[in-house]
Parts: sequence; C-alpha cells; structure tokens
Amino acid sequence: MSQKSVYDSAMRYPAIRVGVGHAVCAHVTPMGEKGAMMSHVRFGIVGLGGMGRGHAQYLAAGQINGAMLTAVSDTSEAAQQWAQQELGPKVVFFDSYTAMLQSGLIDAVIVATPHYFHPDLAVQAFHHQLHVLIEKPAGVYTQQVRQMNEVALNSGKVFGIMYNQRTNPVFQKVRDLIATGELGNIKRFNWIITDWYRSQAYYNSGSWRATWAQEGGGILMNQSPHNIDLMLWTLGMQPSRVRAFCHFGKHRNIEVEDDVTAYMECANGATGVYITTTGDAPGTNRYEVSGERGKIVVENNQITFWRLRVPEPEFNQTNTNMWAAPETWKIDIPVSGGSGPQHPGITQNFTDAIRSGTPLLAPGIEGIHGLTLVNAMYLSTWTDDWVNIPFDENVFLAHLNQRRAIQQNKDA
Amino acid sequence: MSQKSVYDSAMRYPAIRVGVGHAVCAHVTPMGEKGAMMSHVRFGIVGLGGMGRGHAQYLAAGQINGAMLTAVSDTSEAAQQWAQQELGPKVVFFDSYTAMLQSGLIDAVIVATPHYFHPDLAVQAFHHQLHVLIEKPAGVYTQQVRQMNEVALNSGKVFGIMYNQRTNPVFQKVRDLIATGELGNIKRFNWIITDWYRSQAYYNSGSWRATWAQEGGGILMNQSPHNIDLMLWTLGMQPSRVRAFCHFGKHRNIEVEDDVTAYMECANGATGVYITTTGDAPGTNRYEVSGERGKIVVENNQITFWRLRVPEPEFNQTNTNMWAAPETWKIDIPVSGGSGPQHPGITQNFTDAIRSGTPLLAPGIEGIHGLTLVNAMYLSTWTDDWVNIPFDENVFLAHLNQRRAIQQNKDA
Repeated sequence: MSQKSVYDSAMRYPAIRVGVGHAVCAHVTPMGEKGAMMSHVRFGIVGLGGMGRGHAQYLAAGQINGAMLTAVSDTSEAAQQWAQQELGPKVVFFDSYTAMLQSGLIDAVIVATPHYFHPDLAVQAFHHQLHVLIEKPAGVYTQQVRQMNEVALNSGKVFGIMYNQRTNPVFQKVRDLIATGELGNIKRFNWIITDWYRSQAYYNSGSWRATWAQEGGGILMNQSPHNIDLMLWTLGMQPSRVRAFCHFGKHRNIEVEDDVTAYMECANGATGVYITTTGDAPGTNRYEVSGERGKIVVENNQITFWRLRVPEPEFNQTNTNMWAAPETWKIDIPVSGGSGPQHPGITQNFTDAIRSGTPLLAPGIEGIHGLTLVNAMYLSTWTDDWVNIPFDENVFLAHLNQRRAIQQNKDA
Repeated sequence: MSQKSVYDSAMRYPAIRVGVGHAVCAHVTPMGEKGAMMSHVRFGIVGLGGMGRGHAQYLAAGQINGAMLTAVSDTSEAAQQWAQQELGPKVVFFDSYTAMLQSGLIDAVIVATPHYFHPDLAVQAFHHQLHVLIEKPAGVYTQQVRQMNEVALNSGKVFGIMYNQRTNPVFQKVRDLIATGELGNIKRFNWIITDWYRSQAYYNSGSWRATWAQEGGGILMNQSPHNIDLMLWTLGMQPSRVRAFCHFGKHRNIEVEDDVTAYMECANGATGVYITTTGDAPGTNRYEVSGERGKIVVENNQITFWRLRVPEPEFNQTNTNMWAAPETWKIDIPVSGGSGPQHPGITQNFTDAIRSGTPLLAPGIEGIHGLTLVNAMYLSTWTDDWVNIPFDENVFLAHLNQRRAIQQNKDA
C-alpha cells in the first residue's frame, strides 16, 4: 500500500452525517464464522497496567453487550495476583501472550501494553485471525504503525483504536458541523490544551514514564493523542507542514517533552496552532475553528457557533462600506449526553462491529494520522526546521533511536 | 546610546503600582519656561487624515484641560478646507510643516501623518524645542525610531505616543497584577486577536493603504500595534527570539500581510503565541497569561484570574500524590471605567506631563519595543528562520527596502 492511500482513506469525508455509529472507514467482518451472529465476543487483554485493568473491570462486570472477558495476559506476578483476585477463576491468566493467542479462548484482543509494543502485538493477533482493539497511541513511530495497518487491512478482521474521546457528543457535533459545511472552508484552528497538569510525583511513579526508551515521548505521546486525534478527526484534514517547538524537561525532571507549541499549515490554506503542556496550573482547554461561514469555540465541553448570515467571501465581494463586517449570529449549539460513554463506548462499538457490522467510530488504521502529526512535531523540533507531511519515516526513526539509546536518570 | 539602554529603560518595572498617571519612564519638563505652570499647552497637529481630524476635533472642542488647538498642518487642499470649516478661524492652517514649527504659535505637536514620517517630523519638532506626541506606530523600522528616541531623550521635552489602549482599565489592571507578582514568574502568554476584520473595500479606500512603500506593512503595522504594545507593556518583557509566519495578501488583494501567527520565547523561559488577521469574521480577542501562581484570561473586556492557593513550583516540590494538582480559585477581577478615556485620555495625560510633570502613561520612547517585535516578525518570515532580539537593523531595512521598491497594484 502506498503512503498516499492510507492518508486518503481516512481523511476524506463521507457524504453521510457523522455521529456515533457512522464512522469514516470500517473494515469489518459483519458475521461470525458460520454466518450467524456471534453470541458473545470473547475478549483477551494484553497488558494489565492502569488502562488494561480498567478495560478488564468493565468487561468482567458484563457492561458490554455481546462481550465477555475470557483471558488476560501479563508478564508480572503482581498483575497475575490482581487478575485472580479481581476477575475470578473464569478469566484465564496467561504469562505468555503467544499462549493466549493460541488458546482458542478468545476472538478479540485489547492491546494495552506500553506504546512501543502495540503494533507488534496487534500484528501477532491478526496472524491468529483475531480482531484487535489497540490502546492509543497506535505506536511510537509511523513506520511500525504503517506496517501494522497493512497487516490489519489484509486480515479482514475488525481493527479498532481506543480513541475514547470520539464518543464525546460535543466533538461528534463539531465534526458534524464541519463535515456538513456549516463552517464552510476551514481557515484557522487553534487548540490551547494546557490542562494536562502532571506533577513530578506523577513522573516519579514509574521509572518507565517519560522516557524515550520506554514510553517513546512525553505529553505528545501520552496525554495529547486524544486531542490531536479529535483535532484531525473534526477538521477532516491533515496539515501539509509543521513547525513545532517542543521543550524537553522544561517543567519537570524528565528527558521527554512537557511543553509544546506547534504551528501547522494545510493544503487548503488553513493554519493552526496547538499548544500543550503538563506544567501549567490550572491550564486551558479551548478549541476554536474558523471558516468562511463562521467560527466554533469549544470550551467547558460546550459549543458556541458564531454563524455568518452571508459567507465572508460573498460579503467581501459585494461590500462597499470600508468599515462594515458580516452580520454574525451567536448560537449555543445543543448537545446532550455529557462526555459520552468513553472507554466502554468504544469497546461496545468495537464489539458491535464484530457481531453485526456496525461501522467503527474509531478505526484502528486512523491511529496513524495523529501519530504522523506528533512525529512531525518532534522532527521539526529536532531539526529546528519545517517538516512536510508525509516525511521520511527512516529519518524520524533514526532521530528517535538516538534518544532511545541514551536512557537518562530522573533522579540524577 | 546603546541599544541595551533603550530596551532596559522601559522594560524594567517600577516598584510602584501602575495605573493611569503612573508611567514607567517619564521624560518631562514639569514647568513652563519661566518656572510657572503653563496656562495652556498650545497644540499643533501635522497630518489631517482620519486620526489627525479626530485629535483636532476634541482639542478644538476644549475637551482637554489645559490644552488648546492653535495650528494644524497638511499639504492637501481638502484638509485645508476641512480645517477652515470645522476648526474655525482661531486655528491657523499651515501647508508647510516647517512654517508651523517656526510660527511661535505652538508648544507641542501631534504627529498624525503616514507612519514613515513620524520619526523625521518628531525630530524636527524637538529641534524647535517643542513637545511631541506621535501617533502609533512610532515608525516603520527601528533604525529611524532609535534615532528619534535619541533626539527625544536629549531634548528634555515631553515625548508621548498615542497608545490609547493603555488607558483601558482592564489592561492597566492586568499590568498591575503581573507587576505586583500576583501571577508570579510568567510561563506562557497567548493572544488570539483575530477580530480586526477589514474587507477589500477598506483596502481599496486609499491607494496608499496596505503598501510597503506608503504604509510600510499590513495588520502588524496598522491594527496590531495596540495589541503588541499592550502585550509587552502588561508582561513587562520583550521576547528574546521570534519565529513568525506572516501571510501576504492571503485574504485580500494587497501586497502586505493580512494573517500572522508568531511564536516567541523570552529570556525567563516564557513562551508566547500571537495570532492576528484582518480576514476572519467574527474573529476572537482573547489574551491569556499563565504564571507560577495562576492564570489570567482577558476576553470581552473582562478579567478572570485563576489563582493558585499555593504557587505551582511549591506544590510540585512537596506533592506526593501522582494525580494531584494545585488548588485553584477562580476570581472575577473587578474593573470599572469601561474602555477608559482612550485618545483624549492620552492627550490629557501628555498635557498634564507638560504642565505639571505628571508621569506619562505612554512615553514616546517605548514605541520602539512593539516595533522591534513587529520588525522581528517580518524578518523571521522573510528569512524563514528565527530572529533574535535585538537583530541587525540594517538587515531588516534592506529587506524592507526591497519591498518598498516594488509598488504593486491592488487592481492588477
């Protein structure tokens, strides 16, 4: 598959309205093996850290219709003890991932390991004819994720990614407004998302945290993937070039970035700014998108839409009063449902996709888009220059590997 | 005078609280020539365009205590007719600026000509022992403004600049909060000021508009000087380097910039973003400043202050809970007085400075700070690279002169 085809596949909007259950690209196997709907999708989870345990708990509690948790896998004894105590004897624990894949006990795997392992573990699962739901980010560098996507597309299996914030009705509505042309052609987008506060105590809670070798990055790799995904998903486009300014260990004693400002330009002429940090308190979460027909601001999980009565280009073309501006209507966009069903919502949608062909809200192959932008932000900082998208993935990996080779000590 | 001394002079905060009449640097002649307070400062105005006429009207109407309008100067017949009809016979019209300076009819000059002429006309006035109040921007390039500042400082005369937005109590309060340490050390500032909408009809209203040769720039030179000044004035510091992205004639058929995103870094580690355009409708005007003790947001001419109960660095040093964040108090800062007295307020303060030594709210020598940042934004775009401040002023001027030499035709 060419690079272009992956970009195109998920960046084009469908003609339909977008909402829960109306996904961009679903690669689904609608029916069970014998053509009848599977009674239950049997889940295995690999990786029982914080996220993996969370998934295990709601699955074991029967919160996902048509799903059951049958197996978990981890290499640590603590995880084994936790699983036996919390999940009971019906959930089989494997200290070998391969053994779980070969067990015949599962139809689908949730991959909730450290980021670097996501692609390889997903590929192994596809090779065992299993459906795969990966935690975000899809991986640490796009080369490994592109390879995973190719395997996924050839597998015919359902491939999802845990972009749980896509279940938030607010961002579904923003995507809807943009996709249906309410804003017209997009001119500008700015997301100030500086409310990811993390103290030094957070970073000190695990020696693997905030390291190039083990986490593969800082706020861009760990906290921001949701926002980066929502930004690209709502806009329906990927920037064509990026100039980013990452600061490494600026606020905390860590080797990776904890403060980022990135400037982006898109092929349609739109420009954007993305600002994020774990160092600010209380921080801001404000996303604005301007188009030829008005402006949307998302703040406090509410949408305000300033709608132009006449599109700006039309106004500009006919206006003769030097001080005039387009008539603007301020509109509070109604959205209900709070933050949406979040993680269980993604797992439910993934289960429905396996059982009945429901389109995926968060197709796994779309994970590469956000990661591409994040990789470009790192590369721009490291080279102190523009990065065009797509960039040379080997160059990025070489830069990353330099940093992975030098594990620093937080306590030094 | 070294470059450093000019930067230092106005960028240091005084120990006093800042408000109307408590300026940073006042270079004043407190008394009239004979040691007694002048009964009235006799004003002349050079340049009867939109701004000059505005100043003439409120002065002629007697709205400034201790001031009277005695002369105006312009080269156009239309201006002469306007002056005779609107200002009456007591205000003498000069078609020669030199003649007005030599007339003995005035104590002070307001310079309200096209930007390029501000420095030279101010210098001439100082040489005639007159006080000078210049319109913003101080000039088009810092080299000419630096020379003007040197003459001004040596003249012993009062030198002001029409930064009328410094009279806004909201920004005085922001400056006060920052100067008195309520925010602690500044970490981040972002100003999205995209509500300077200007249609093509605006640009077509004068052939001199939006040209390198006659206006010397676009939104950075004409609309933004107020915001750039308020940003530097409230922060009390100048960035040490800039990476800017100006777009020239992006939204309108003009040769200068109508869309700018600039990233800035300061010596104390703070980073900032400034985003402005004349192309967006309805646009945004939102200024946020984050520090170690909290965050200020100015929007809709109101200040919200999120105050940390304990400064963030102190919290971070003692906190042991990996998910904890500092306790934050949301505070609505009381400010009265609307947008303040604006242009007449600056002229009143300037008059008071001449008559009784009142400190200037907007000393003329501070005009170079905002212009320095604006010049750096252009230079960064033209060289597609970082610009350190201070930069080589000859390099900037060479780039500018290239563009001045090629007058483009808006109607082409």
